[in-house]
Amino acid sequence: MKCFINYPKFSDFPIENLPYGVFSTKKDPSHRIGVAIGDQILDLKEISHLFNGPELVNKQHVFKESTLNSFMGLGPKAWKEARIRLQDLLSVNNTTLQNDENLRSRAFVPQSEATMHLPATIGDYTDFYSSIHHATNVGVMFRGKENALMPNWKYLPVGYHGRASSVVISGTSIHRPHGQTLPVEGAAPAFGTSKLMDFELEMAFFVGGPPTKLGEPISIKEAQDHIFGFVLMNDWSARDVQKWEYVPLGPFTAKNLGTTISPWVVTTFALEPFIVDNYSQDPTPFPYLQNKDNFNFDISLQVDITPQNSNTATTVCRSNYRHLYWTAKQQLVHHTITGCNVNPGDLLASGTISGDTSDSFGSLLELSWKGTKPLTLLDGSQRKFLQDGDTVTMNAVCEGEEFNVGFGKCVGTLLPAKKLDF
Amino acid sequence: MKCFINYPKFSDFPIENLPYGVFSTKKDPSHRIGVAIGDQILDLKEISHLFNGPELVNKQHVFKESTLNSFMGLGPKAWKEARIRLQDLLSVNNTTLQNDENLRSRAFVPQSEATMHLPATIGDYTDFYSSIHHATNVGVMFRGKENALMPNWKYLPVGYHGRASSVVISGTSIHRPHGQTLPVEGAAPAFGTSKLMDFELEMAFFVGGPPTKLGEPISIKEAQDHIFGFVLMNDWSARDVQKWEYVPLGPFTAKNLGTTISPWVVTTFALEPFIVDNYSQDPTPFPYLQNKDNFNFDISLQVDITPQNSNTATTVCRSNYRHLYWTAKQQLVHHTITGCNVNPGDLLASGTISGDTSDSFGSLLELSWKGTKPLTLLDGSQRKFLQDGDTVTMNAVCEGEEFNVGFGKCVGTLLPAKKLDF
Ligand SMILES: [Ca+2]
Ligand SMILES: [Ca+2]
Ligand SMILES: [Mg+2]
Ligand SMILES: [Mg+2]
Ligand code: NI
Repeated sequence: MKCFINYPKFSDFPIENLPYGVFSTKKDPSHRIGVAIGDQILDLKEISHLFNGPELVNKQHVFKESTLNSFMGLGPKAWKEARIRLQDLLSVNNTTLQNDENLRSRAFVPQSEATMHLPATIGDYTDFYSSIHHATNVGVMFRGKENALMPNWKYLPVGYHGRASSVVISGTSIHRPHGQTLPVEGAAPAFGTSKLMDFELEMAFFVGGPPTKLGEPISIKEAQDHIFGFVLMNDWSARDVQKWEYVPLGPFTAKNLGTTISPWVVTTFALEPFIVDNYSQDPTPFPYLQNKDNFNFDISLQVDITPQNSNTATTVCRSNYRHLYWTAKQQLVHHTITGCNVNPGDLLASGTISGDTSDSFGSLLELSWKGTKPLTLLDGSQRKFLQDGDTVTMNAVCEGEEFNVGFGKCVGTLLPAKKLDF
Repeated sequence: MKCFINYPKFSDFPIENLPYGVFSTKKDPSHRIGVAIGDQILDLKEISHLFNGPELVNKQHVFKESTLNSFMGLGPKAWKEARIRLQDLLSVNNTTLQNDENLRSRAFVPQSEATMHLPATIGDYTDFYSSIHHATNVGVMFRGKENALMPNWKYLPVGYHGRASSVVISGTSIHRPHGQTLPVEGAAPAFGTSKLMDFELEMAFFVGGPPTKLGEPISIKEAQDHIFGFVLMNDWSARDVQKWEYVPLGPFTAKNLGTTISPWVVTTFALEPFIVDNYSQDPTPFPYLQNKDNFNFDISLQVDITPQNSNTATTVCRSNYRHLYWTAKQQLVHHTITGCNVNPGDLLASGTISGDTSDSFGSLLELSWKGTKPLTLLDGSQRKFLQDGDTVTMNAVCEGEEFNVGFGKCVGTLLPAKKLDF
């Protein structure tokens, strides 16, 4: 496929990718839906009339909305038709858009001139815990090698409900939080700023298809029809707050201080060339959880830390989505097995994606092994956990021989704690 | 205060209450905002033009919307003005509405002709665990008397993020769910229908005021301005699923199968005559959590079970909101201490409200003490946990000498499990 928009061979956003996002510009601050192509954004509001296939001709309004929820809600036939139409319209062999100077000038916006926003209104956000290496590492640290994995871990994708309101778009700064911690085991807790701020390297998918009904679980066969696409995610975590608060009902204020996602939603279609075998599961899951086709992806992941006032990013982690034990389909099916309903725009995150080598761990908790093995950054400074001013940059890309499919970046800076005025 | 609408002296919905809800009728299926008065509903869409005080004259549109979110977002000055105006309009001494036959015929709808809906779009739902008796009971059952309360419990209001999409309105039936359980400790888990379905008697409040900003905690002084009003809640729980899944990240599919709330949101103003002393807290909480004014309420709570094909309701629990250790203000402040933002329409639940006597426990888990002490219902049947066809009816009322302030009912029937077609 050759596109009439020029971009480097291994651009994150070739015509084979076409991720969806929501953007605005200085000239037009309204939020609108776009597709990334090379270093440009194609504004779908301007070309909504060109979606004239059977699935979309009467649904063109979805491209004029300020979030992707309605488009996500249409389901896979409509998504596929939109993708084929976009690839057609962007092809050198099609003149409709290519030769319409006026439309082209309105429809393309340089990414450098755009501000990105949350791609959807997130009704509910859920975080899983699906990397066996991550769960094992954390288990070894806190419970010892013998009891590293909880007995339920290999039977179901462990997860918990997260806070939807504090999911923010890449580029949003996060303040070091105040909270309660237990500095000395067995003594009284302390209140103050978190000392152990961490990132968690995750990916997340947006739910699509019509809203499901309460009491009607999604089967593994139907699951893919409810998976719209994926983003990168940084689940900022206050480890010291988490450790004190999480018993017995799970993480709460340690995680609701901000969760950053990358702006471009890469569709499942774009990931298909990068499908790899599912992680081998032993014991065999219950039938409702058996994902017999492959729904695992070779997505290279990287985390960099850039200290304040520094231009030097240090890569602290190289991991891969394929390390996940549970697939996204298994996560979704398990989420609904007791009858929970899901809506387009819901966000389901993978959990921290750690690989099996010590340079592939997806959090500083693991990389510094609870602070016992500080990392040395390229500027010579050391890190057990994040310091004020640190910028965390995550990157995700599927590397092909002919083209890449990239996610772009998920970036955030940890700012110093604000003074509490109470 | 005398109202020109007649109702019995101890009606749930006297002129001193005026709770808000969202309803529709057969004649007009559009969702609209109403206020309960006696056995009637006052349709605020029809009288929106009468809110002509300084806070509301330019915000009358909030009364024409299909949810309470915008009205909730206005904050306490507007809420107070609306209440005073409504009491004025409903008073025998005011003729504006009383003598306008045409408007009266449009503006009043019998509650018996109305269908109630969720009062707000719930952006996020959080469940706390704030009854010391409930937390102690559960602790004794699962960890023994010595370790009943976790070390953090008296330092912070333990809570967790719940599932917003599955919060449903009173009257919605819930199907017994399928899920994973561990019938034999140490053996392999089983998949099937939950055997241990339970209710949890809770109350919950809706957040109000403008959306807060990420990174800006709400102080205890500001907290009341963000508390719009209260409802009754049944947090349906699959105990066997919960026990297997909840380690280490908390309850997940055991709780997201449905959470029922009562339709009428009783405002904090209406609860003021029923304020009682806060629960005595030892140790003294950290300053950010110190709630020095009283924000606890004498609300009588009752749970009835009515078996299938029976007209006989058995009261299985009489409890009271005042048993809560942590106040709603403390819950909200702690929720935001690390910087979590909240939005009007967010729902924060109390946790199961158990008293200190065995007939005041707020769940069957406690009432039947883990199934060891079956209850006998009035029809002679026994209950350890819920049976298919059981209707659970919760009631809440503040009992005064001159008037009551009632919440109405929170009702739901547990239907048999659906056959999974996969
Ligand atoms: Ca996480
Ligand atoms: Ca509960
Ligand atoms: Mg987070
Ligand atoms: Mg529930
Ligand atoms: Ni939500």
